[in-house]
Order: sequence, then C-alpha cells, then structure tokens
Amino acid sequence: MKILTLIFLICVACYTPLLASEERGTGDLGVVVERADGSLQVIESTGNTLLGRIEGLGDLSHASAVFSRDERYAYLFGRDGGLTKVDILQRKIVARTIQSGNSIGGAISQDGTLVAVSNYEPGGVRIFNATTLAPVADIPAVYGDGKQSKVVGLVDAPGDRFIFSLWDAGEIWVAEMKNPHKPVIHKYKNVGVQPYDALITPDGRYYIAGLYGEDGLVLLDLWNPDKGPKRILGDYGKGQQKLPVYKMPHLEGWAIAGKRLFIPAVGRHQVLVVDTDTWSEVDRLDVHGQPVFVMSRPDGRHVWINFAFPNNDTIQIFDTQEMKLVKTLQPGKGVLHMEFEPRGEEVWVSVRDIDRLQVYDTESFKQVAEWPALKPSGIFLTSRAHRIGL
Amino acid sequence: MKILTLIFLICVACYTPLLASEERGTGDLGVVVERADGSLQVIESTGNTLLGRIEGLGDLSHASAVFSRDERYAYLFGRDGGLTKVDILQRKIVARTIQSGNSIGGAISQDGTLVAVSNYEPGGVRIFNATTLAPVADIPAVYGDGKQSKVVGLVDAPGDRFIFSLWDAGEIWVAEMKNPHKPVIHKYKNVGVQPYDALITPDGRYYIAGLYGEDGLVLLDLWNPDKGPKRILGDYGKGQQKLPVYKMPHLEGWAIAGKRLFIPAVGRHQVLVVDTDTWSEVDRLDVHGQPVFVMSRPDGRHVWINFAFPNNDTIQIFDTQEMKLVKTLQPGKGVLHMEFEPRGEEVWVSVRDIDRLQVYDTESFKQVAEWPALKPSGIFLTSRAHRIGL
Repeated sequence: MKILTLIFLICVACYTPLLASEERGTGDLGVVVERADGSLQVIESTGNTLLGRIEGLGDLSHASAVFSRDERYAYLFGRDGGLTKVDILQRKIVARTIQSGNSIGGAISQDGTLVAVSNYEPGGVRIFNATTLAPVADIPAVYGDGKQSKVVGLVDAPGDRFIFSLWDAGEIWVAEMKNPHKPVIHKYKNVGVQPYDALITPDGRYYIAGLYGEDGLVLLDLWNPDKGPKRILGDYGKGQQKLPVYKMPHLEGWAIAGKRLFIPAVGRHQVLVVDTDTWSEVDRLDVHGQPVFVMSRPDGRHVWINFAFPNNDTIQIFDTQEMKLVKTLQPGKGVLHMEFEPRGEEVWVSVRDIDRLQVYDTESFKQVAEWPALKPSGIFLTSRAHRIGL
Repeated sequence: MKILTLIFLICVACYTPLLASEERGTGDLGVVVERADGSLQVIESTGNTLLGRIEGLGDLSHASAVFSRDERYAYLFGRDGGLTKVDILQRKIVARTIQSGNSIGGAISQDGTLVAVSNYEPGGVRIFNATTLAPVADIPAVYGDGKQSKVVGLVDAPGDRFIFSLWDAGEIWVAEMKNPHKPVIHKYKNVGVQPYDALITPDGRYYIAGLYGEDGLVLLDLWNPDKGPKRILGDYGKGQQKLPVYKMPHLEGWAIAGKRLFIPAVGRHQVLVVDTDTWSEVDRLDVHGQPVFVMSRPDGRHVWINFAFPNNDTIQIFDTQEMKLVKTLQPGKGVLHMEFEPRGEEVWVSVRDIDRLQVYDTESFKQVAEWPALKPSGIFLTSRAHRIGL
C-alpha cells in the first residue's frame, strides 16, 4: 500500500506543473487591457469567460496589442515605451523591453517575424525580432535640418512593409522590410499639417491619415504609390466644428461595410458615410454624441458606435443598408472599446467606470455575459492575427 | 539510490502521455487531405513543416473541412458520408459518424455549435452537435410529390443560418437555426435547372449558385431575401462552350478582389471578371487551360489559377489591377488545390501526381518548402475558422 501511495503522490507532483498551463486551441482567446493596474485579463470567447490575469506590464494607458501568427503570443505597446510579449496560453510575460520614453502603438509584419513600435520620444520607429524582442533596426524619423518627429499611425501592409506618419514633419513613410536590418524607406513629403492617426483598409491597399493641423484627410494608394498621396474629404476635421472636441476619434475604428466607409465626425454628433470608389461623402448619420469608435460588424450590415464624454455610457447601432438607427444600448459609464468575435455573432464591450466587461449577442442585442475587470479599456481577440493591418 | 531511480522512472512514465501532445498556439495549423489513404497531414505554416498524420478517415475523395472557433478541431466531410472530428493538437480522431451513404460537403454555424452536412444519399441536410457529433436535426430535402433531392452548395451565413441548394428540385433553402432542434426553413423554388455548387461572398451577403442544366447563375441577396433569387450572367455555363468540360470548376474557389469577382469559365480557357455592383461581366482573361480554382491572394492584388487535365501541372498568376499575367509556375502534374496563409505572404499547393506539398512565397514566387504527402488534395488552414462561409 505504502509504495502505491508514494507512486500516486509522485505522479500528482509530476503532473502539477503541466496542469498549471493548458493544452487548448488559441483561436478563441483574447486580452483586455486593465489600464489602471498595468495588467491584462485573458479571455475566451467560446464560453465567454475570464481565464486569468497577467500583471506587470507598466503604463497601459492608450495601450494596444497585436498577435503572433500562431495566436499564442500578444505584443503589448505601452505608453511608457514598454514593449511586452506575453504568452496567452501560460499567462505570463516572456519578454519585455523599455524601448523608448513614450510610444503610441505598433504593428507586426505580414510574415510575423518583426514587431515595430512608433515612438513619441525620441520619435521614429524601432523594429524588433518577434521571437526574442532583440533589436533589429532603428528608423529615426529625421526631417528638415536634422529634427526628430513623433511617429503615429503605424500599420503593417502586404509585402512585409510598415507604413507610418510623421506628426511634426507632415510626412508618410513606407518601410520595406525585405532585409530587416536594412529597411528601404520611401518618403512622401508635405502630405498635410500634423497627421495624428491613420488606418489601412482591410485589403491593405489604402492608407488614410487624419490631420490635426488642418481639415481633410490624406490617402495613399499602396497599389499605385508613384501617384503619391492625395487629399480627400476636404471638409473633414476639427476646423469645421462648432463644438469642443472631447476626444479625437480613433481612425483604426473606422468601419468598412461593403464599399462604404463610416467615419466619426470630429466634434459633431455625426458619422460620415463615404463611398470608397470616389472617396466622397454620400451621407451623414445623426448620432447620440461625439463618436469615438465606429466599428463594423464583420458582415458589414451593422455599425456599432461609442461616444466621448459626457455621452460615453451609450452605444448606438445603425443599419448600413437602411442608414437608420436600430438599437441604443446603455452598458454603463465609460464605454471605451468594442471588439467583435471574428464571425460577428457576439461583441465584447469594456465599460471602464463600472469595472465591467460585457458580451452582447449582435442579433438580439441581449447581454449574454458580464465579468468584473479593473478599469478595462482596449479589447483584442487573437483573430486579429489573421488580418492585414491589425 | 534505488528509490530515486524509481521516482525518476515514474516521473518519466507520468510525463510521456502529455509530451505526446503539444502545448502550442493553433492559429498557424492546418490539415491536408491525403485522399488515397483516407488520412490527413497536419501542417504548420510558421516554419512550414509537417507535424504528423491522422489516419482512418474513410473515403476522402472530394473531402472538405471546417474548423472549430478555437482552431483546435477540424470537421472532415468524406464522400462516404463519414463526418469525422479530429483534434489537430493531439492528432487523433475524437468522434466519427457515418451519417449518410454519400455526402458532398458541410459547414459550421456562425457560433460554432452546429455542424451541417449535405447529402446525396438519401439527400437532405443533417445537423450535428459540434462538441459530440450527436444528431440535432434532420432536414429532408423533400420536393414535389415527396421525392428527396441531392443537396449541394451548403454554406453558413450570419444569423446562425445555413444556405444550400437542391440539385434535383432546383431550389435554394435557407435554414434558420435559432432553435437548433427546430430549424425554420425558407424555400426559394424554380431557381434554375440542377444547381451543382454555390458560394457565399466573404461578408455573408450574397449566395450564388451555379447551374448544370442550363446557362447562367442564381444570386440570392440575403440582406433582401424578400426580393428572391435573381438570374445573373445569362451566358455563363457549359451550354456556350465548344470544348469538352474536363471538370466543372469549383465555385468556392471564386475570387473576390475588391469589387471584382473572378470566375472560372466552364470549358473555356478563360477567367471571367464580374463587377459586383452590377453583377455583369466586364472583362475576360485568357488562361493556360480550363480553370478549376481561381483564388484571390488575401490582399486581392493577385489571383492564382489552377487547371483541369491535361493542363493540371501549371499555375498562373494574374494581376487584378493590370488584368495581365505576371507569372506561370509549373509545380508538377496534378496541381489540385491552393491555400493562402491568412495574411497572404505564402501559399500552400498540393501536387497529387508527384506526392508533394509545396509552399511558395507570393511576392517572389519562389518555392520555400516542399514535403512528401500521399496524393494530397484539399488544403485547409485553421484561419478559416474566423471567416464567414468557410
């Protein structure tokens, strides 16, 4: 008997460290930024549950994430210049570097081998090995007589390219990473005053930057880069608005539904509808407040919209065919972000001021799950790993 | 010493069964059908290697696969009516049922809870619990005076719907699965003679069926189902062709690039280019043989085309902006299928007659990997789990 008991206990002891992590698929996982605590909640969207917390990620205000192509690792871009690689399966940090004094976002290359970070201080873009986070290349955003520019609107594009905008310089740069140690840079100058954010269309063809210093947007057709950037939607921007701007809208949140682009107006209680054939405005939706994110349900039939303070307790859902309001939800104060599950059947919502994560059915609009989280902000599902520009 | 040795051996014994499987991300995995042997190769697309074989899947001629939303499990639809659920991580069969005498494809519901199979014998669609493969519902394809129809072109659509076509009846049915045990069926009759296959657009809006018994295609706009199916491209089909048809093209392989649809002509050495605003033909590409699959690189800039016998040793790549040939590859006899990695940097190719799987870089067109496989046919990457209609 005694020897059997011993064997049993040894077996338990041997098993334990393996059971602490998990063998499971990673296609339904995600991370939620808990900005106040510098931590991440790991979530799964099949049963809509929380799996655990990863701590010690530094200043996560305005943080964003991208994923490794196997959907196991997340790369977190913190405001304090911290770049952290976390293992979502084992729920631990596997590598971390403070790569600058102040950063504003990042991207992962098409082939998944490189992670790029855009910096405010000292400016420029730094490129890291996605496996080890070892530095690979440094792209100082030098312009004019040797000044360094803040860099914003960094995205990946097909052909292992990174695209980004220079706030101070008013330039868009395209970095070809065929030889990762020697990026080839194409510079587009005088694109406009103070590009402050950008998006790339889901097919990776059009890069669109917003301008803070003047009205209008800048569009670069990456299929025809020789034609250079062109200005579109000349009236778009804060110059036209009469209301105070509580929050500049996120450009990454712009929704493409079919051939329509849905853009949050700056300062106005409106969403602009743009035809992507002509890049001209074809309609406007009157909405509940100053829109922050306008997110397309993956099938494009609905857009979900959240709002700046003092209307940030509300989400509105519009039908993109009828161009009319179909539902108004009030999840609670501080709705900061929405993330659709990849086939669109449900959406995750972070409600900061009541410390809640909520999940809604996108057909019935019913809340199907709710969990506590510490001042949740950005929600990022691993399915982004398979998408160009995310 | 003896007791330590015993402990060591027990530890090894305890570990072994766990090491046989793997803790890893599943976003970069896939399966390749080895039709002659009724087996699957499990592949991974980060290092481009083979991970192992799963055997005992029955008759896999014309087999296809869908994936669980966590990207861990594949559901294989065999020609012999076999429905098999395999665990890609552990590389084993977890459930298998012979659900009919002859089946032709399947789909997984938007929320991942239901798997549907379309049958030739006895006809109709059967619905199974995705976890256990227990039967959930049976949809006999009864038409006219009680006859059963063969069912083809089964796809999933947003709103937990399945759409399929009745070969013998000339009908399209939409099954709403809100209550899985009591599907609500909407029937569209007299859509055309012998629908033989179908596709759904990536946003899940348009269902398009090909007709074997007459020329033209049938389009159902799922955003406006009340308008009913309409006929498009009246000249499309085998009626117009002068050449013998070696193989009816796959409709699932049709490529959408931007607002253009690229369709393999039937019998002709041509690919048709269709404007998806008007659903009319705007161009034709002359190609190397009778096209079978016309696949869009995920960014839409290129389409890759393979061909029916006797031209099935060749792949052609066309630029969708210039509408011109950019490359001809000759992988070897029996090019049966192509599958792009989700961000499009590489493509997997099955070359049946030389028993090879090949991987190509989609920018340089260079072959970057090659592996032996037993008469490989369909290639399915787990990233399909996140896509509507795949």
